[in-house]
This record gives sequence, C-alpha cells and structure tokens, in this order.
Amino acid sequence: MSEGLTFICLSVLIAAVGAAEVIAPLRTTPADNLRMREGASFKTAVFADLHFGENAWTEWGPRQDYNSVGVMSAVLDNEQPDFVIYLGDVITANNIMIENASLYWDQALSPTRARGIPWSSIFGNHDDAPFEWPLEWFSETGIPQLHCLTANASFAGGEECSFRGTTRLELMKSEIEQNTLSFSKDGPRNLWPSVSNYVLKLSSASNSQEPVVFMYFFDSGGGSYPEIISNAQVKWFQKKSEEINPDSRVPEIIFWHIPSKAYKKVAPKFNIHKRCVGSIFLENVAPQEAEMGMMKVLEKRPSVKAVFVGHNHGLDWCCPHKKLWLCFARHTGYGGYGSWARGARILEINQQPFSLKSWIRMEDGSTHSEVILSS
Amino acid sequence: MSEGLTFICLSVLIAAVGAAEVIAPLRTTPADNLRMREGASFKTAVFADLHFGENAWTEWGPRQDYNSVGVMSAVLDNEQPDFVIYLGDVITANNIMIENASLYWDQALSPTRARGIPWSSIFGNHDDAPFEWPLEWFSETGIPQLHCLTANASFAGGEECSFRGTTRLELMKSEIEQNTLSFSKDGPRNLWPSVSNYVLKLSSASNSQEPVVFMYFFDSGGGSYPEIISNAQVKWFQKKSEEINPDSRVPEIIFWHIPSKAYKKVAPKFNIHKRCVGSIFLENVAPQEAEMGMMKVLEKRPSVKAVFVGHNHGLDWCCPHKKLWLCFARHTGYGGYGSWARGARILEINQQPFSLKSWIRMEDGSTHSEVILSS
Repeated sequence: MSEGLTFICLSVLIAAVGAAEVIAPLRTTPADNLRMREGASFKTAVFADLHFGENAWTEWGPRQDYNSVGVMSAVLDNEQPDFVIYLGDVITANNIMIENASLYWDQALSPTRARGIPWSSIFGNHDDAPFEWPLEWFSETGIPQLHCLTANASFAGGEECSFRGTTRLELMKSEIEQNTLSFSKDGPRNLWPSVSNYVLKLSSASNSQEPVVFMYFFDSGGGSYPEIISNAQVKWFQKKSEEINPDSRVPEIIFWHIPSKAYKKVAPKFNIHKRCVGSIFLENVAPQEAEMGMMKVLEKRPSVKAVFVGHNHGLDWCCPHKKLWLCFARHTGYGGYGSWARGARILEINQQPFSLKSWIRMEDGSTHSEVILSS
Repeated sequence: MSEGLTFICLSVLIAAVGAAEVIAPLRTTPADNLRMREGASFKTAVFADLHFGENAWTEWGPRQDYNSVGVMSAVLDNEQPDFVIYLGDVITANNIMIENASLYWDQALSPTRARGIPWSSIFGNHDDAPFEWPLEWFSETGIPQLHCLTANASFAGGEECSFRGTTRLELMKSEIEQNTLSFSKDGPRNLWPSVSNYVLKLSSASNSQEPVVFMYFFDSGGGSYPEIISNAQVKWFQKKSEEINPDSRVPEIIFWHIPSKAYKKVAPKFNIHKRCVGSIFLENVAPQEAEMGMMKVLEKRPSVKAVFVGHNHGLDWCCPHKKLWLCFARHTGYGGYGSWARGARILEINQQPFSLKSWIRMEDGSTHSEVILSS
C-alpha cells in the first residue's frame, strides 16, 4: 500500500447534508397509494443518474456528492414537488468499497427526506455493479490508503474494506425499512434478479378509490445481470394492468432506467428534431441489450401515455413514438460522466381534465423544454 | 420460473469421482519444501483450464466435469508424476450459482488427491468471475428450475441459490484447510486482491537444505480485478528471489495463468514456427491488460529458465524469448471453449546435471512436443 491519497470519511458528508433532518420512524405498512391535494396539480421531480459514491478514495467523489445534494435541494425548493422519483444509478457501486453501499444511497435520499417529501426509486445499471479496480492501482503508485470506517459503528466490517458490493435486494430493503416516506418496493419475487418492479396509484383528492393515474416502475437491469426488461416483467405488467385498469380508462405512465431500443429509432438524426422537445441531443442512445416484448405491449395499450428513462446523461428529449411519448429525464448528479448543466425533469399531472405536462428545472433555477405529454 | 431444465445435483458427481478417496486430515503446518526422490527425476503434471462447474443448469456441465476427471486420471496414471500444478481457471465461477464454489474446486482436485499426489494451484480469470446471467433466461423461456442444494448440508443457504460468488480468499482458504497434500498459499497480504503468490523449493534427495529449483507461482488477475501482474508482485519477486537465491545459482521456473504481452511478440506468425515447439498454433495470444515490470525482471535474471501459462486453449507451444522460454500448457478440461484434444504439459527436472525437459501427454495416452527448456 502506498502512502497516497486518503479516503474522505463518509460521516463528514452525512453530517453536512443531514443536519436539518428529522429521523423518521420505521415504516409499518407498505404504501402504494398517492393522493392528489384538493384543487392542486400533482407535481413530481425526477432525479436521474445521481451516481453517489464515485472515486471515494479521492476528494473528488465526496465533492460531487455534495454538489448533487445542491442540485436536488435547488430543484426541490424551486418546484416544491409532491413526489420525487429516483430514476436509477443513484450510486456508482463499481467505485464503492465500503461494506454497505446503502450509506451512499441514503445520502442521495436525504434532501427529499429532509423536506418531508415522499419518493420512490428504481435501479440503474450502476447501483449493484461489481467493484472496478483502477488499473493504476497495480502500477508503481500502488493501492491508495483506503479507510472504510463506516459512519454507523454497528455495521459489520469496521475499518475493513469490502469489494463484494451490496445487492439490489439489500439496498431496497434498507431503503424501505428505514424510511416511512419511501414508496419503493422490492417487487414480485418471481421477477428477481430484477427487483424494483411495482405500481403506484395516484388517486383523486375527493375520492381515494378513484385513480387519476397509475405509475409503473420497472427494473431495466444492468450491473449484476443483463441490461434488459424480461418477458416475465412484461407478463407481470399485462396481468397487473388488466387487473387494476381493465378497460384502460385510467392513464398510465412508465419509469425505468435504460432506454429501450425504440428510443434509438425515434432519436433525432442529422440535427432534425421533428416533433421532439429537449435541449441536449449530444449522444447516441445506449439502449437495453434486447427487447423481450415490453415496448410492443406498451405501444398497443391505449392508456399508456409516456415512458421516462435516464442512463444517457447527454440526452434530455421527449419524442413521440406511435401513440405515446418516449422521454429522457435530465442528468441530476455531479457524479457520472458528462459536464452538461444539471437539472431534473418535472412532471405535472392535472385531473379534470387529465393532463400530463413536463419541463426541465435546472440547478440555476431556469426552466426549459416544456411539453404536453397527454395529447 | 419455468418448468424447464433441472440442475443436476452436485452430490452425484462428487460421489462418482471421490469413491476411492481417503479423507485427508486437516493440515497443520504450511508446506513450501518439495523433495526429489533418490536417483529419480522430479515429474510435474500441469493441469490448465479445467473449467469445472460450467452450465450447471443443464446436463452438459456435469458431463464435461466428469470427462475432465477422466483426462486428469489418464494423465496421472500414465505419467505417475510427483507433483501437480493447477494452472488457473480451475472453475468457471461465472456459471456457478451455488453458495460455495469450493465444491467444484474440490472436484477438480479429487483425482490428484485420490492418488496421494501433492499439488499446488493458482488463480485464473474465471475462478472468481461474477455470475453471468444467460440472456435467454429473460426471454419467454424464463429461468430454468435451479436446485442449489449443496452436498454438505452444513453450508449456509440450503437450497437457496446464490449469485454472489466465492472469493479467491475463500477458495484458497478452503483448499488449504481441507487438504494436507496442498502446497498452495494465499500469499502476502500486501499483494491482495492478487492471492496465489508464493514460492516452493524443490530440494535435493540427499540434502533437504540444497535447493534444486525454485518454483514461483503468481496470480495474474482477472475475474474480480484486472488481468494484470502488479508492480507490487514484481517487487515481492525481486525481494524474495534476492533473499533465497542471491547469486542466481539455483534455477527458477515461473507459473501464472494469463500470458504476458511478451508471448504476443514471440508467437509464431504466418505459420513460421522458427524455434518454437508445439502442436497447436490456432489462436491469437490473449495477453494481460498491461505490463507492470515483471517480464523485464525475469528477462534480466539469469536463473529464470521458463514461464508457463494457460488461458489460450488453442495454443500449446514453447518459444524461446531472450534467454528464457515462454510456454503454454495444454487445455486439460472439457469445460471452457475449444474442442482440441485434451492433455497436460509435463515437466521433468533432473538434478545432476540440472535439466528441465517438457512434453505434452494427451488423454489418449500419446505424447508429443518434447522440448529441453534448460539449455
């Protein structure tokens, strides 16, 4: 081991971002029902690709996480949303060598929790990716001095670093058990290794039995298993949507992390944006590895209005595709590749008449790329 | 889960190959001293790329393992070696979903152990590679019915499958603790994540203090960390060899799994074999990711006679490189890519005068590619 760089202790950042927080009691019942407020629209902020926990052996990583907390705080204070969606790649597990990566995950949740806003989360391809040893650690420089002392002394391991990672199930169980504001779920067991598959109902202010919209969350894989939405997930969606929305009367919106191949088809080419709305068109779409039927099912179902994904930090567009919209969120985190200005996609739902409007709120407070996704 | 293929229970194969075995007592002291027999040469069989545990969810995998036991048995019975070297990729961890991959590792050791022959082992890039989920498991076919019941009921997990893998340290500790015949070591802690780094001394029949040859074993990485021999390993070799063989008087031979870039340079091109000796020249060399100084040190040290690697199943040559020889072993296992006939490289060491001869013994009993590596 060289006497090189020293890992900045995690507890410092936790103290910094969590100061104003009230410790939430353990949740007792799972929640799958969100409620509109009387006379108000329902506003959701989508936080995509936060990538907490990068390069934890240098000062760079913790500084990016601190900056990402700043982005989220600015968006939350400007928009005052009713709900937040963490759209995957919440952490960069391939850089994390502490025993329990939930500590980084928890940091990412903290600005939302501190404001008492409920949220839900899904997994991206980095959240349980295996640790990647930097090649330079094998050169003369050697492995930097790593301090893996965790903030919570009760965690096993103490100062011992661990390179085995934290599984999707462990991350999700930790989030759910420790947060009453979390609406996340670890999904049906028969869909594992795909974990974050669930549906939330947003119901009317006047009648909790009256659904305004169903929000479907899917794990699009990556990290410990292929970047894919399985046929089993497709079947689960078909069964579930038939059961709770048999006549397709209630609008449905869909969230997952990695764009499907359909995004590649509708992506603007040669700088011709057609009916697409967005501000950055700077990358090729990096789609899932294969299609197992999800897009066909969504395209045919009249109630499905839009799909939202992250993953490509250099894309923030919405493009129409057949009778629905395919949208990217906006790179929210200072972690992850790319130095495009950070922001978050906002969704605004109105009940009577139903409308789904979206725009992007930037860290500096500006907004752009407003689009109506319900027409 | 579909009602598809059923995983063939591991215990069946263990029973089949382990029948004639005497259970060895737990080892108490580490061994690093091998001894020549009076008036005899010292013969070593090198088993490379056995790849136990492939496709464990079909009948194919266990059948290949059974066949690999056959190859090893044929070689051992024909050659009656004094020692065996397991040259990495003993198992295909990226296919193994039982809690403890040591069970497969142990199967690979069983033909040698059953004959009372001592051995040592090093790691290849597959031995702790992360589980790779087959893409088809996410299609309509679904995940086959997996039975992960282990032969040893005391292992945690019971029938629960595990996809987290078994670390190099766990594999090595398990081998060492359970086998008095094992000369393997988990190496200096400051070289981790690189684990199988150690040296064995072969000493004279007449005088246990008189070394005939030093055999150096290195972990060339891959799987959970990059395919590389680190600068720290180079420094360890320099220090160790200076300490135990300061005047370079005693010959040294070297074993690791992944060829270094020097192999690419000396590989026969355009079917011109020059001074190379071998029978298959059917692939491009797949070398380590980077050089951190090991080859330069070996090339300069007069006592280093030869380097032996596996990894490329379609290569079995020895080529001269500066004042030493670079040799491939021979693909021994039915697991792993390629259908070239299986065999094992044999090394024969004589003391007075010192000589290092090598040939390849095939499963069918034939031999070929004899070469003197000490001249």
